[in-house]
Amino acid sequence: MKQKQTFALKGNLIYTKEIGTLEILEQHYLVCEEGKVQGIYPELPEQLCGIPVEELGDRLIIPGLTDLHVHAPQYSFRSLNMDMELLEWLETNTFPEESKFQDLDYAKKAYGIFTENVKHSATTRACIFGTIHNEATLLLMDQLEEAGIAAMVGKVNMDRNSPDYLRETSAEESAKATRAWIQAVAERHYERVQPILTPRFTPSCSDELMELLHGIQKETGLSVQSHLSENPGEIAWVQELCPWSKFYGDAYDHFGMFGGECRTIMAHCVYSGDEEIQRMKENGVFIAHCPESNTNLSSGIAPVRRYLDEQIPVGLGSDVAGGTTENLFAAMRHAIQASKLRWRLSDQSLQPLNMEEVFYLASKGGGAFFGKVGSFEPGYEFDAVILDDARLEHPQPLNVKQRLERVIYLGDEREVAGKYVAGRKVL
Amino acid sequence: MKQKQTFALKGNLIYTKEIGTLEILEQHYLVCEEGKVQGIYPELPEQLCGIPVEELGDRLIIPGLTDLHVHAPQYSFRSLNMDMELLEWLETNTFPEESKFQDLDYAKKAYGIFTENVKHSATTRACIFGTIHNEATLLLMDQLEEAGIAAMVGKVNMDRNSPDYLRETSAEESAKATRAWIQAVAERHYERVQPILTPRFTPSCSDELMELLHGIQKETGLSVQSHLSENPGEIAWVQELCPWSKFYGDAYDHFGMFGGECRTIMAHCVYSGDEEIQRMKENGVFIAHCPESNTNLSSGIAPVRRYLDEQIPVGLGSDVAGGTTENLFAAMRHAIQASKLRWRLSDQSLQPLNMEEVFYLASKGGGAFFGKVGSFEPGYEFDAVILDDARLEHPQPLNVKQRLERVIYLGDEREVAGKYVAGRKVL
Repeated sequence: MKQKQTFALKGNLIYTKEIGTLEILEQHYLVCEEGKVQGIYPELPEQLCGIPVEELGDRLIIPGLTDLHVHAPQYSFRSLNMDMELLEWLETNTFPEESKFQDLDYAKKAYGIFTENVKHSATTRACIFGTIHNEATLLLMDQLEEAGIAAMVGKVNMDRNSPDYLRETSAEESAKATRAWIQAVAERHYERVQPILTPRFTPSCSDELMELLHGIQKETGLSVQSHLSENPGEIAWVQELCPWSKFYGDAYDHFGMFGGECRTIMAHCVYSGDEEIQRMKENGVFIAHCPESNTNLSSGIAPVRRYLDEQIPVGLGSDVAGGTTENLFAAMRHAIQASKLRWRLSDQSLQPLNMEEVFYLASKGGGAFFGKVGSFEPGYEFDAVILDDARLEHPQPLNVKQRLERVIYLGDEREVAGKYVAGRKVL
Repeated sequence: MKQKQTFALKGNLIYTKEIGTLEILEQHYLVCEEGKVQGIYPELPEQLCGIPVEELGDRLIIPGLTDLHVHAPQYSFRSLNMDMELLEWLETNTFPEESKFQDLDYAKKAYGIFTENVKHSATTRACIFGTIHNEATLLLMDQLEEAGIAAMVGKVNMDRNSPDYLRETSAEESAKATRAWIQAVAERHYERVQPILTPRFTPSCSDELMELLHGIQKETGLSVQSHLSENPGEIAWVQELCPWSKFYGDAYDHFGMFGGECRTIMAHCVYSGDEEIQRMKENGVFIAHCPESNTNLSSGIAPVRRYLDEQIPVGLGSDVAGGTTENLFAAMRHAIQASKLRWRLSDQSLQPLNMEEVFYLASKGGGAFFGKVGSFEPGYEFDAVILDDARLEHPQPLNVKQRLERVIYLGDEREVAGKYVAGRKVL
């Protein structure tokens, strides 16, 4: 099916226009025109009669999901050696594994597994960390483009506090490699995959490197992704490294990479204080909430309800390999579950998240980082996932909303029966 | 293969003799004689040469897992309408659904789904709540026997604080029905399935009913299962209902159904105080730790490390439908994850659980309620699960322990390639 052709999917549509609500349209037509949602109809109007229709029977159709934070090279060691906190975990598991990606054969194999699994998931968009290695990162981008995933992918910058085998030799070298990588990406003319600037986190990036990356950001207009306020030890370390910073986020903002002119995603924000929250709000920084990772690394639980109340944009991240799975249904249930434990154990002023809210976060919430993505409202990119929930047997009749709730709690790639990204069928 | 025949499985054996340690024997023979583990050998000794050997190649072989707490009738509404606490959830979801099991056609369909899914899981033993209905509970027991699962199943007792449609008319009627059910079970001569007395929880059972059940327990020697200290609202209610009780568990112990002569499982124990813990320890009460349920119903996180330090017997429960899945690998990961959040958010004096510890809880820990179950030590019941983890691709070599860790975090019924219960192949 050509991308430009007008066509329709017919089935049970579920999407959300605003957080906390669901739009449910049973046995409706979802029309795609020029890769975008043209409209939803109970019956096709006359001018659309004759367009191809994919009849999906009783299946569910939801918007494609966005993974706002995931480390592709870490997919290989997901679920291994999980019993440590962030900084020890980085030294013990992450850095040795990421160093292997200087070997392109290894990268091809490892990224092949990652890409194949993302392809079969409900994810249509993702913001992805690679490694410091240009060639491996380009290879990952090639694979994602081939798989049809609309991804922002970052070659990672690290010039300090990292082992010799995974550290760029200077700020200048890191910046130079970044420019070369951006140039190589441009020459590949990807249709779906874009570069994103990716200073790993403040402890890994010298002030000089941050300054240079800011220059590249201003020149290129690229977006930025990094980590923020994930773990108490990390936060204390940033304060030592940047004693001039008012709070962790200020150490990014100081270099112009914290929202505002520079579209920015910050992962985690478990411990953001009032000032940091205020700055994120003013600057329109996106938060990637990664509940499973924050649990596995004993980081804590982010106050997502507060971010929502403050109208800070929030989406969900799988954060493999702090998280164990690319499955964003799992991220949704983890977000509900973590919010309930936070309510019970720490702070009953913040109500737990519910299923409508986490569905929003995973679809329109995170999708907003890519523009008009994550909804079936007219003009949105036609990212659609077809769900066949027949595996999840039940003895009683269930309505469409209940079926979605079951997929959120129990679903994985087995429920994903088809997928469109910006109007193109990729699965 | 006949149950009585001596045979061996050959593969990579993993089990645990004591909590916190793993026994790993690669490419060894696990010999079954008369339904029990006869021994483990690197090569078969002369006297065993010629016995049938199931060659399992590089697969993993672990002891069967025990689900110490699960509600079979709730399987039908798992993952639905989860955004409430225990008492509201019981009224809204549980009681209406459980009342449907007076209809045997419905029960057959619903229990059929439950039994089939348990059969394909890594669970070989389970302690299961039915409903108040004798016929449906017998039907469930028939199905489990047919599936080869070694289960203790309880017809539930409820004579107060329950809706008319799901309440026995008096303590006497409830006791009478219980005797009739026990008699009917005896007449069926099950090989694997046993009855267990199941007062739902103190709020559902009058003092008079508890007294009558105690009489039945003394006559029959049956074990008992119930709920304890799950939710703050529940605990306050028990104190109102039994103002004479020193603590919630005392309201069971008062009627002789809290360990000691009466083998007892109590599910949850999220809020057990010092006195209750001391009594459980003295009486040898088993605790069924149900981390996912305690999260989904915003109950809290049980101090499992303390129970282990006190040497109270602990196993894991899926607690469907407070939990969403029969998969005990999920219960293991949830137990680790919950313990990490408890450490971070409430109490850094209790170290989080690690993978070796939760593997013990799900195998030998819970298995102990059934006797010598959950280990491959000689004389243990031959409950064995064969795991094929080929689905969980990885680019680097992994050792057997790492492969088990991945199954704990990522595994489900797809990894279960075979299963033996007390020497009989059931899958």
